[in-house]
Amino acid sequence: MSGRPGDARRNKNVMDRRSAIVITAPELIVAATLTVETRGQGFVEITRDVEDFVAAAGAGDGILLLFIRHTSASLVIQENADPDVCTDLGAALNRLAPAGAGWVHDSEGADDMPAHVKTMLTGVSLHIPVRQGALALGNWQGVYVAEHRGRPHRRDVVMQYVGGRHCGA
Amino acid sequence: MSGRPGDARRNKNVMDRRSAIVITAPELIVAATLTVETRGQGFVEITRDVEDFVAAAGAGDGILLLFIRHTSASLVIQENADPDVCTDLGAALNRLAPAGAGWVHDSEGADDMPAHVKTMLTGVSLHIPVRQGALALGNWQGVYVAEHRGRPHRRDVVMQYVGGRHCGA
Amino acid sequence: MSGRPGDARRNKNVMDRRSAIVITAPELIVAATLTVETRGQGFVEITRDVEDFVAAAGAGDGILLLFIRHTSASLVIQENADPDVCTDLGAALNRLAPAGAGWVHDSEGADDMPAHVKTMLTGVSLHIPVRQGALALGNWQGVYVAEHRGRPHRRDVVMQYVGGRHCGA
Repeated sequence: MSGRPGDARRNKNVMDRRSAIVITAPELIVAATLTVETRGQGFVEITRDVEDFVAAAGAGDGILLLFIRHTSASLVIQENADPDVCTDLGAALNRLAPAGAGWVHDSEGADDMPAHVKTMLTGVSLHIPVRQGALALGNWQGVYVAEHRGRPHRRDVVMQYVGGRHCGA
Repeated sequence: MSGRPGDARRNKNVMDRRSAIVITAPELIVAATLTVETRGQGFVEITRDVEDFVAAAGAGDGILLLFIRHTSASLVIQENADPDVCTDLGAALNRLAPAGAGWVHDSEGADDMPAHVKTMLTGVSLHIPVRQGALALGNWQGVYVAEHRGRPHRRDVVMQYVGGRHCGA
Repeated sequence: MSGRPGDARRNKNVMDRRSAIVITAPELIVAATLTVETRGQGFVEITRDVEDFVAAAGAGDGILLLFIRHTSASLVIQENADPDVCTDLGAALNRLAPAGAGWVHDSEGADDMPAHVKTMLTGVSLHIPVRQGALALGNWQGVYVAEHRGRPHRRDVVMQYVGGRHCGA
């Protein structure tokens, strides 16, 4: 086989579809932990909390990283315009990891093993680009803690910023 | 319980299975946005575009981070040798998030809510190590934008490099 | 619509639920590759190997990034207290991506295409915060290589640390 399989599908004129390059010096790593009280199964939006952290960190251009320190709650970036989307996302996860599916691990309650599966499928770490001190989220993207247990829990999310300082900061 | 559960499974001779350590100074954060035109549901390979960005950034040793600014398209690293793999990956996602499953959120079309679920399951952010200016992908790994809507869309992917400069750059 | 949808759900008193900010200078990027021998389908814990790398790297405050260079094995952070959890996680993945589901791509064995789907759903890259030289994992979190092929394989995991030096290092 000559060349990588991707070659044939490559857009030859890549410069036309790539924006100008922005270069920054990595000056800071800033960290804090956000504690989120959930109300049982469902999605808790934390976009504004993350934005507040990025502002408090004096961030300029860089990367915001999030990590949730749990095995039955996860981090999800999804639409925050219509609350029905989160309802359906929860229903989808319930179908993919139903309670009462004959799980071996059932000593912590019928909702525990499904919560582990949902966490595995949706993930505990993600990052968001930061541009001129603002999260570079898409128009419809919000950041959520997804609680997969039935009862309310206190969940810790570690927020870290790596990048340059905000101009004037 | 004494010790972490992982202890028993630990390979005692870890030095034998870990490569030498490479140390670099973080000198650069470089960012650009790639705009990808999709043709409706399916996988669009962007490996070469990402490689071009890493080269243009003057990257040496470091980390390449990708983020897609959408809620109905995602980023996937998968086999790029046999195109049938992507066909099957799409079929698998269709089974996990079928259209017509009684979604509450249906105002944007029958393909919209399944697209949100597929995006949640596959993710909007990932990173790839960079070694001596090249992506440290495995032999069979390619980077894809997975379009989950039925019609063509324009999708923005933010590419960021954090790391050292290429020797001679 | 005035304001972002998240506004209404914002905790007004965010300072009360965010820990103090810790600031570090990014001084190091340290990289090494861990080679993991799997025994066929199942989860191999690598938490201690990652901890050993972070110690050897002289890490202080920063970020540990992991990347697996394969398309049929993935990285998962999940409970490491009760081994039954991993058994159930494997069973859940088998239900989501069954062998014999009429996959087009079957030239590499009946377990190959299900392994690609499971890898797509669980992911090949993640990060973990590092605080004062230690992984900031939750109490029950362990780091695993999830092998999705039936037979034993040798899997490469690239470990990278970005951050400050350990005090005294």
